[in-house]
Amino acid sequence: MSDAGGHAKPGRLVLVPNTLDLGNDSVPISDVLPLGVLRRAANLQHWAAENARSTRAFLKRVHAVVPLARPLQEIQINELPRARKGSGQAISAAEWQALLAPALSGHDLGLLSEAGLPAVADPGAELVAQAHAAGLQVQTLAGPSSLLMALAASGLNGQQFAFVGYLPQEATARAQRIRELETVSRRHVQTQICIETPYRNAAVYQALLDTLQAGTRLSVSQGLTLAGATSHTGAVSQLRKSPGRVDDSAPAVFCWLAN
Amino acid sequence: MSDAGGHAKPGRLVLVPNTLDLGNDSVPISDVLPLGVLRRAANLQHWAAENARSTRAFLKRVHAVVPLARPLQEIQINELPRARKGSGQAISAAEWQALLAPALSGHDLGLLSEAGLPAVADPGAELVAQAHAAGLQVQTLAGPSSLLMALAASGLNGQQFAFVGYLPQEATARAQRIRELETVSRRHVQTQICIETPYRNAAVYQALLDTLQAGTRLSVSQGLTLAGATSHTGAVSQLRKSPGRVDDSAPAVFCWLAN
Repeated sequence: MSDAGGHAKPGRLVLVPNTLDLGNDSVPISDVLPLGVLRRAANLQHWAAENARSTRAFLKRVHAVVPLARPLQEIQINELPRARKGSGQAISAAEWQALLAPALSGHDLGLLSEAGLPAVADPGAELVAQAHAAGLQVQTLAGPSSLLMALAASGLNGQQFAFVGYLPQEATARAQRIRELETVSRRHVQTQICIETPYRNAAVYQALLDTLQAGTRLSVSQGLTLAGATSHTGAVSQLRKSPGRVDDSAPAVFCWLAN
Repeated sequence: MSDAGGHAKPGRLVLVPNTLDLGNDSVPISDVLPLGVLRRAANLQHWAAENARSTRAFLKRVHAVVPLARPLQEIQINELPRARKGSGQAISAAEWQALLAPALSGHDLGLLSEAGLPAVADPGAELVAQAHAAGLQVQTLAGPSSLLMALAASGLNGQQFAFVGYLPQEATARAQRIRELETVSRRHVQTQICIETPYRNAAVYQALLDTLQAGTRLSVSQGLTLAGATSHTGAVSQLRKSPGRVDDSAPAVFCWLAN
């Protein structure tokens, strides 16, 4: 690192994993993030983040294990621009440059999302792309992903899989999408993975139980890394009889594989 | 935990992440695995593993940070059965039961693969499925995945992506498969992710550069979590001019997104 200035060696964009608990600190941060990552985070003085407030909460948790190099109030946190759906107005090159300014002037710049790895099922990818375009080095630190933890816990095919994001909210469109993805799963022996906002967990689970074929295997992981984490897994025909508990208490990840 | 016996409360199958460095211990294990995971691993006395020898090497690295609860020679490590391709002989239920025996008799049983999360782009999924079928609880610990670290570093679409395993080795079949996946990528705005054994990294990279369309964006991450980790990213047309260095020194992950 060096002082700001046109001739400084550029800093890196450092992708910092977050916990998966959305600030529920019942589980210590050192149970889910490596000490090396906490050390690195404690030394970053410039951040781009999905949310400045929760980034400060994250840094307080880091500080409890590895003291921050500078007081929290001296750490610069800029929020990523929100997607402007329907406005037809793209985010300007100048806005991205402003976010990347600390790295361009020689400081390592952290990128943090609300949970897990930034830029995966989360905002941030566009900033990473802009960093590459600006010739900056991008470094990813080791951290958990709820998607792959759920996939591992499912016992379904981990050699071929697709993350399909969110399902449609409207019931008919959702059922149609589930059938379409079941066909893809059968044809390519490909596990399908989707997520949902917690308050729709139960509805999505029911839709999967109602729509998928009896022999398709389904797995629902909820509250991963928390004390009460669950992974219900079985053929749809079995889960219809004993569905286990899937509620709005924590994020859920759904995986299925047609036979 | 309790002594072996038919009436003991069953143990859990615990999916333990490994480092991504395949035993290259130039980077401390606590830089890539959470302390809570190391503590848990240090207390497991029964393991199912892809490879017993490298599991012992892993446990020695754990021991250097968190002393093992028992001497290494007292820890039971059973290897997963190897896939019997072409033999037409499935692995028997009795073999799976033997592997799960410690959990069935009340002991937590660790599952470890050679790198990253077990059962993701690695063996182990069948054991997880057998554990669910036997009514055992399955717990996944937080750890890194080279696939998602590479995806995050790529700046490509992290909202929709597919892991497609390995590409065919034969040149014509490989080119055809790359074109097919590029079409899927374009139609579904879906990032495609594949891996390769290190000694074929350069050949696969060249095949991608030769076959993908000029405007498709490609990213190659190599040596993730190691000191010399690189992520080359850009439009294929740019990477043809300045391809960076991709060699056989470490595992690589390839991501691409058609435009």
